[in-house]
Amino acid sequence: MSSFIAVDWGTTNRRAWRIEDGRPADVMRDATGILSVPPGGYADAATAIRARLGDGPLLMAGMVGSNRGWADAGYVPCPASLAALAARLLPVAEDAWIVPGVSIVEGQRGDVMRGEEVQFLGAVAGGLAPADALMCQPGTHCKWARVEGGALTRFSTAMTGELFALLRDHSLIGAAMRGPVADGAAFRDGIARSGEGDLTTALFGVRASSVLALRDDADAAAYVSGLLIGADCRVRVRAGDSVHLLADPALGALYTAAIEALGARAILVDSHAAFLAGIIRIWELQA
Amino acid sequence: MSSFIAVDWGTTNRRAWRIEDGRPADVMRDATGILSVPPGGYADAATAIRARLGDGPLLMAGMVGSNRGWADAGYVPCPASLAALAARLLPVAEDAWIVPGVSIVEGQRGDVMRGEEVQFLGAVAGGLAPADALMCQPGTHCKWARVEGGALTRFSTAMTGELFALLRDHSLIGAAMRGPVADGAAFRDGIARSGEGDLTTALFGVRASSVLALRDDADAAAYVSGLLIGADCRVRVRAGDSVHLLADPALGALYTAAIEALGARAILVDSHAAFLAGIIRIWELQA
Repeated sequence: MSSFIAVDWGTTNRRAWRIEDGRPADVMRDATGILSVPPGGYADAATAIRARLGDGPLLMAGMVGSNRGWADAGYVPCPASLAALAARLLPVAEDAWIVPGVSIVEGQRGDVMRGEEVQFLGAVAGGLAPADALMCQPGTHCKWARVEGGALTRFSTAMTGELFALLRDHSLIGAAMRGPVADGAAFRDGIARSGEGDLTTALFGVRASSVLALRDDADAAAYVSGLLIGADCRVRVRAGDSVHLLADPALGALYTAAIEALGARAILVDSHAAFLAGIIRIWELQA
Repeated sequence: MSSFIAVDWGTTNRRAWRIEDGRPADVMRDATGILSVPPGGYADAATAIRARLGDGPLLMAGMVGSNRGWADAGYVPCPASLAALAARLLPVAEDAWIVPGVSIVEGQRGDVMRGEEVQFLGAVAGGLAPADALMCQPGTHCKWARVEGGALTRFSTAMTGELFALLRDHSLIGAAMRGPVADGAAFRDGIARSGEGDLTTALFGVRASSVLALRDDADAAAYVSGLLIGADCRVRVRAGDSVHLLADPALGALYTAAIEALGARAILVDSHAAFLAGIIRIWELQA
């Protein structure tokens, strides 16, 4: 099998591997996300990757394929398989392609992802998750995906991380949200409170609890995190479910706590390994 | 009955009336909310009111009684009547008093209001609402109150208006939220969607719908407003309920639409008339 360079090119970071014989032989990582690439600067940015990892064809995924990236690689509709993605690669230069994203439309509603699809489907291709699984990639925009028969059949996105940051940085309760966020009594209290389905009232309660000295302000950030993550999990996770989590250790621990509080099981998946398995399979399929 | 000056002194505005024989004889309004009063400046600010409306005792309510105002007038716990408020007036200068706020504590949870209590209880005192009523004062922090036997027995606060402003001014979907907010198809769609109990996903859907061209961006602000107001009303209003709304015409129309969509009835109450009825009754009770 031919060698190539796989690039996971996001908004603020990128990570690239030289793949030889279906295995990573070298890796680079830097902060040249698409926000750091000037208009018209992608050819030079690709040259920099090759200068570091050696010549070879580039197969890229992530926000590099958005309308703010190198070129808009479009979306493959659900149900989406790795083969469907491989059949729709967008060539952007000689020996350089971008993997499309995935969309879902139900009536007037829709959702989109770009980059996570390679990880979700790659987790299955790499044997890190079964062919039928509920998966979650937490973050600024938390992605929940259902994979069936190895294809991405449904997904939804919650604005969980962004909402937390908005509240901390710009809201009335932000001043109280300076404490740490970790699994503990306050976080668990937030998860429990999320079950009442009244998020905006629970959020004002942070202010009231501060005024009335009912809760230490040091606990407010963890409580709000529990509220938001609890709400996020609660609408998708049922007791007895298994959730495959593609997360860093910090968010992984928080989502695991919330998922277990709902009587379900969380299985951590290495998201870089999942990406590699997915992008290598796409390369094989299009060859 | 003696004359006095009633002041509704909020965060960004104040309104004051000279009350003679239990009726308003003169009124002033300006933008000298507590954010505009320098530390130590309240005596001068009170002098300015008397210069405009004539000498007389001052009875004040609202954020002037907060820890950022003239002095912290504390809170009367639920159940709270106008008599209980009148018994706890805080003297802050010669012939000048502040009405306390109202608090509720249930276990580790609490809520507070300051200023709205005079309006809720005043609506009953003034015959604008029955002695047993569900009331709502929408705004940045939307207050919902249950009045029973003429006393404020329970209430809760939703961060509805603040969340809307955070999303519009600071979030990923803010750029799409430049259109008007009014009752219409998009607002009704938001109310309906709020019934799914998954607010953070519905919010990300605004972005996805824009990317996929499923909804005109001009409708996004009304849709988000419907989502938030719908969620706000849905947890408190049941079919057949009557809700007494203390709101300006614009917010009153939006909340009326949401309340009616839930099969309930909205009754608009003039909030200034309610405030006057309440503060006049407090004055009589403490005399």
